[in-house]
Amino acid sequence: MIYEYSYLQDFIRKVFLAIGCPEQDALLASKVLISADLRGVDSHGTARLSGYVRLYDNGRLNPNPQIKIVHETPSTAVIDGDKGLGLVVAPHAMKVAMEKANNVGSGWISVQNSNHFGIAGFHAMMALENDMIGWAMTNAAPLVTPTFSKEKLLGTNPIAVAVPAEKNPAFVADFASTAVAYGKMEILQRKGSPAPIGWVQDKEGNPTDDSNAVKNGGALLPLGGDREHGSHKGYGLGAIVDIFSGVLSGANFGPWVPPFATAGFMAAGEQVGKGTGHFLGAMRIDGFRPAADFKADMDRWIDRFHAAPAVDGQKVLVPGDPERELEAERKANGINLLEPVVNDLKGLADRFGIEF
Amino acid sequence: MIYEYSYLQDFIRKVFLAIGCPEQDALLASKVLISADLRGVDSHGTARLSGYVRLYDNGRLNPNPQIKIVHETPSTAVIDGDKGLGLVVAPHAMKVAMEKANNVGSGWISVQNSNHFGIAGFHAMMALENDMIGWAMTNAAPLVTPTFSKEKLLGTNPIAVAVPAEKNPAFVADFASTAVAYGKMEILQRKGSPAPIGWVQDKEGNPTDDSNAVKNGGALLPLGGDREHGSHKGYGLGAIVDIFSGVLSGANFGPWVPPFATAGFMAAGEQVGKGTGHFLGAMRIDGFRPAADFKADMDRWIDRFHAAPAVDGQKVLVPGDPERELEAERKANGINLLEPVVNDLKGLADRFGIEF
Repeated sequence: MIYEYSYLQDFIRKVFLAIGCPEQDALLASKVLISADLRGVDSHGTARLSGYVRLYDNGRLNPNPQIKIVHETPSTAVIDGDKGLGLVVAPHAMKVAMEKANNVGSGWISVQNSNHFGIAGFHAMMALENDMIGWAMTNAAPLVTPTFSKEKLLGTNPIAVAVPAEKNPAFVADFASTAVAYGKMEILQRKGSPAPIGWVQDKEGNPTDDSNAVKNGGALLPLGGDREHGSHKGYGLGAIVDIFSGVLSGANFGPWVPPFATAGFMAAGEQVGKGTGHFLGAMRIDGFRPAADFKADMDRWIDRFHAAPAVDGQKVLVPGDPERELEAERKANGINLLEPVVNDLKGLADRFGIEF
Repeated sequence: MIYEYSYLQDFIRKVFLAIGCPEQDALLASKVLISADLRGVDSHGTARLSGYVRLYDNGRLNPNPQIKIVHETPSTAVIDGDKGLGLVVAPHAMKVAMEKANNVGSGWISVQNSNHFGIAGFHAMMALENDMIGWAMTNAAPLVTPTFSKEKLLGTNPIAVAVPAEKNPAFVADFASTAVAYGKMEILQRKGSPAPIGWVQDKEGNPTDDSNAVKNGGALLPLGGDREHGSHKGYGLGAIVDIFSGVLSGANFGPWVPPFATAGFMAAGEQVGKGTGHFLGAMRIDGFRPAADFKADMDRWIDRFHAAPAVDGQKVLVPGDPERELEAERKANGINLLEPVVNDLKGLADRFGIEF
């Protein structure tokens, strides 16, 4: 089923309004969520809407949070999200980061007491229009094993970094610290297809091609896959994200990060901090060198990488290219939702008396 | 041949003195270089000493640089290394980062006009004693292909992040953004052994087990190895390091980063900036939350990861564990140098009239 993005976005906004979000928050949250659909991170978009409503139903989501600064210096702060939508808390924290960058060159905010913040790239990209570099990370419930571990201790813990250029579109890296996103496993599960070796391990920690491995006690593997191919580096990266987002803010960390509201996986267990943690950063380019000079060099960087000779049938991309192309295509031609997602939305429409 | 680390360190110091480094700089540079030998990053330690001397011989190294701040805000700066030893320029920049962190919570320094800075972890770990988180990155001459590229456009571009704990030793992640360090390829070359698939590609961009592939027009692969296993993420990571170190500082970037002084690979080609670039950062823990609370939570993090059930015959490590264990072992039992390295050192001893 194909839908216009603006239609879906408006529906999302109305659902957030229906659970009690203020007008501005509902609009912002709908922008973040639809941005994931547009940029091809389908698992973090409209498909999650009913999950946020389940978080609300279970008392884990405060639709009208009092987001506040717990502690700060001129360039750092911890922000308490007051159990608000991560979709709203993270942009709020990013605005504080940018204010600090305006004042003293950079701003770095660690966030506690939040929940799933959607697509990391959205928050990092907020910095671009101010000629700043944006940085966004979040921890998440454990799906990933450290190298040599049988136990899942880290989330897919993504990193996004957005860097402005002048004539070229911005450089936007946005990736999980795993070999593959869990959404790709779900696609294989629906098809009944095996997974490439290096994506998952079984419950004994052995390599497997079972695309249901995570459900069967196994785990996603860190970027690198196995020790020989550098999985300790992907593990290190996921750990850095966890520490900056969770430990530095006073949120939960490691295996204690509460799950998102997927069916049958609802309750948070023992807690060592408050909610889920994020880390947002902004650096003013002209805190380093004139923005025009920097952006001219970024154009040179991007042009040079695009010009590299590619293997047959491929081209060399710059981070952000595929998502931007998809966004243009989906804005023009609509967003294709799977039947279970459409049914979820119809259920929400019935419940809240919203047309869909 | 086994040498006491203090003997090697003192020899290194004397060589740096002999090429005209001030007393303090020679001592600091010797500490950084020997730290690589101690922590198992053999390719970045004593083995590089003759390379730094070749840089000096070729006029690419200023032994007595006037390191200066080009531009700054309260939390950011660009520093010009004046062609000094990266081993000295990077710690200088880290000190400026820590001063800024003391003043305004964090400090972020992009460095131009430097050269190889040795082991990234050394610089990041400088922050630990001040209850700060340290961050160190550098770009390097191109050995790595972006995903789908036949051409080498990025260096091995390492990242180091050091985080203090209380009763446990610090968390220290320090890794290149490639599947494997080039030093591991050199070990295979000496043995005449093939490389695992996923480490390198040949000059046409095909997977290969040729451990001489990089010499034969091929390239190291980004962390992830191939597109299916997330090489675009390792490429993104290496690109972020390059942009923060090179583009933000006004150093060279991408394929223009000048080579280190290895034989037959001496001259820098076209330049788009000044020398090699680094990026150093420091964040004061109590810019976020009380350091004691944070460090207690880091202990909990570290203990929890150590306690995870491991696959047979292994244990779950925390980043920094292997290097710290090796450092203790090598401080006690000495450092084993390969014959070519010993011959290099003997050559330097003869040239400068230093006992070895």
